[in-house]
Amino acid sequence: MREVAIIGIGQTPVDEHWDKSLKELAGEAIFAALHDAGRNSAEALFIGNMMSGILSKQENLGGLISDWIGLPGMEAEKVEAACGSGAAAFRAGLMAVSSGEVDSVLVVGVEKMTESLPVETTEALATAADADYESAQGLSFVAINALVMQLYLHTYGWKHTDFAPFSINAHANALHNPNARLHEAITQKDYNNARMIAEPINLLDASPTGDGAAAVLLVPVDAVSVHGKQVVKVIGSASATDAIAIHSRKDPLWLSAAERSAKKAYDQAGVGLEDIDFFELHDAFSIMSVLSLEACGFAERGHGPKAGLDGHITIQGKIPITTRGGLKGRGHPVGATGVYQIVEAVQQLRGEASPTQVEGARIGMTQNIGGSGATIITHILKAD
Amino acid sequence: MREVAIIGIGQTPVDEHWDKSLKELAGEAIFAALHDAGRNSAEALFIGNMMSGILSKQENLGGLISDWIGLPGMEAEKVEAACGSGAAAFRAGLMAVSSGEVDSVLVVGVEKMTESLPVETTEALATAADADYESAQGLSFVAINALVMQLYLHTYGWKHTDFAPFSINAHANALHNPNARLHEAITQKDYNNARMIAEPINLLDASPTGDGAAAVLLVPVDAVSVHGKQVVKVIGSASATDAIAIHSRKDPLWLSAAERSAKKAYDQAGVGLEDIDFFELHDAFSIMSVLSLEACGFAERGHGPKAGLDGHITIQGKIPITTRGGLKGRGHPVGATGVYQIVEAVQQLRGEASPTQVEGARIGMTQNIGGSGATIITHILKAD
Repeated sequence: MREVAIIGIGQTPVDEHWDKSLKELAGEAIFAALHDAGRNSAEALFIGNMMSGILSKQENLGGLISDWIGLPGMEAEKVEAACGSGAAAFRAGLMAVSSGEVDSVLVVGVEKMTESLPVETTEALATAADADYESAQGLSFVAINALVMQLYLHTYGWKHTDFAPFSINAHANALHNPNARLHEAITQKDYNNARMIAEPINLLDASPTGDGAAAVLLVPVDAVSVHGKQVVKVIGSASATDAIAIHSRKDPLWLSAAERSAKKAYDQAGVGLEDIDFFELHDAFSIMSVLSLEACGFAERGHGPKAGLDGHITIQGKIPITTRGGLKGRGHPVGATGVYQIVEAVQQLRGEASPTQVEGARIGMTQNIGGSGATIITHILKAD
Repeated sequence: MREVAIIGIGQTPVDEHWDKSLKELAGEAIFAALHDAGRNSAEALFIGNMMSGILSKQENLGGLISDWIGLPGMEAEKVEAACGSGAAAFRAGLMAVSSGEVDSVLVVGVEKMTESLPVETTEALATAADADYESAQGLSFVAINALVMQLYLHTYGWKHTDFAPFSINAHANALHNPNARLHEAITQKDYNNARMIAEPINLLDASPTGDGAAAVLLVPVDAVSVHGKQVVKVIGSASATDAIAIHSRKDPLWLSAAERSAKKAYDQAGVGLEDIDFFELHDAFSIMSVLSLEACGFAERGHGPKAGLDGHITIQGKIPITTRGGLKGRGHPVGATGVYQIVEAVQQLRGEASPTQVEGARIGMTQNIGGSGATIITHILKAD
């Protein structure tokens, strides 16, 4: 198996891009990644996207985007794992290179969410849940997460206000990320008083939607020649699932797919918790930050909120998270998010993340979640 | 790169399965493939599917199906390339095994098309075309193919009735495939008099929709122990694209992505045209059979219909095609079709295809097309 390096990164701001179509957004991120790598083409393209069929009446993105970027003929396809589509596409691209099948792969995550009516977007997002047993019963995606958060508060005795540090940290870091959707610092008071969405989830627990695209260029490590930039290697990659419906899980408060994929990735990378310098986790809702930290071993079961309250999650903390704003601050264009996380981790490992640079960062972890915990994909990257 | 073998195959009949959901169909094919291989699990699952989000309000099929088959925790994701989704998922699964990332992979293609209103299915199928420049102008998918066929007749001077052998052959072979959607022999007269759909495409030029699932189990060749069945190796695999919109192609009558992916697959397999014993091509419409034969080298440009008229495409012919009925006879549950083709090729290579067995078949080719030629994926399989 060949080792794989990320030699180019690119992204668009996460925003309401009313003037740009899906393919234009994807192209913008791809061209930036190619430019960053000093290349002008690649052999294959893997696209992370969840909702183009429903919201843009457009599937077959492989032919669409490869033609748009001026590389018709290249291998290209879409990989879908709901909000985990970006990392799923990245992992597919990774295997394409590591297998020796292709020598250069572009991965782009792209989503266009804001041109539809909010009710259409909400319905499209609900396809990440169980259509028969969750969505058809009227459970929107935020409602599912609200039930989980409610159960967590009830089971472990935390107060809603104890979750504020996750949102405050994400907003603080996003302030310095020019590509973030939100540039607005928030306080504990803002959090406490935010408008309720689905009790106990309020507006500041939830990540914003958005349009956006992020892209990376992958090549075998041994094909990296003079490049001038810090080479970043993928040293761990794993994907795991759990039941799609929350009620079918052994423990609705435990992300077993996060535990499983993180453990596999640690083993593959040969690293332990103490080696991870930062963690780009999937904070679609603040409760998910807590569950991810616990399942991956950074906090004890039922003690996740403490990591926030004790300041461990900040840039200077023991395990900095959402260092470029996370889903909460950078925004959550669902199928693109997993690739944004990779791009941001590369920025950290290259030392390009000032003023939210994690000092001396050598190893970073990313984790992308599809559905309320059904598909969880973990990657570990290392500055080589 | 590890060599990969197919050690298990399974399929449901292609039909109107009103009593079975998407996951039930997928499960049925998967269990059959596992049973066929004498195994009870696999490490990863790649799902080929095009329209579940639109027609079943269900994405995130990885978590859904892995849980349903009793293997929650396994890696699982969906790969989409319109009607080429099945082969795209197969190729992704192939790379997962050949890369060494996983040691056993299930690939399932599944589609549920007949529970929706016909207009909904037509709209969903149109997402395979360019949403802005084709679908939005009122071009349905059959209309796009009708324009291509019209141009072909005009350019090369063939009559519509010259295309009959493709449909007659497909129906004749499907008669002996218990999983085929159509079990009805047709004649030249039937073809000539069939109801017009979109001139010049009539009902007997077009493949029927359907619900169905097909599955295979992949392992490294060196992991195949005593199995009792003919081992089938994947010796060629390639994917290529062309512009999604027909008007953007250099030549609307030339499937450049078929030519490109077939050539790559021939090179990889180290075989020539004369070595291919049969060809499961993508006869969504009879014009596509002709264009595929030409682009892959089995007929000269503009001479494709001759292969039918001369009887080369029958089981006893020089290049038997659609030996189990093809899309026309077996049916075209779009995201599943590519995996049906692989399953049927394995049946041929195992000698399990009587009475449409191609005598002495050792090497077979499959080709799956997404859109009107945008994504084309070619595989070459060999009885080891």
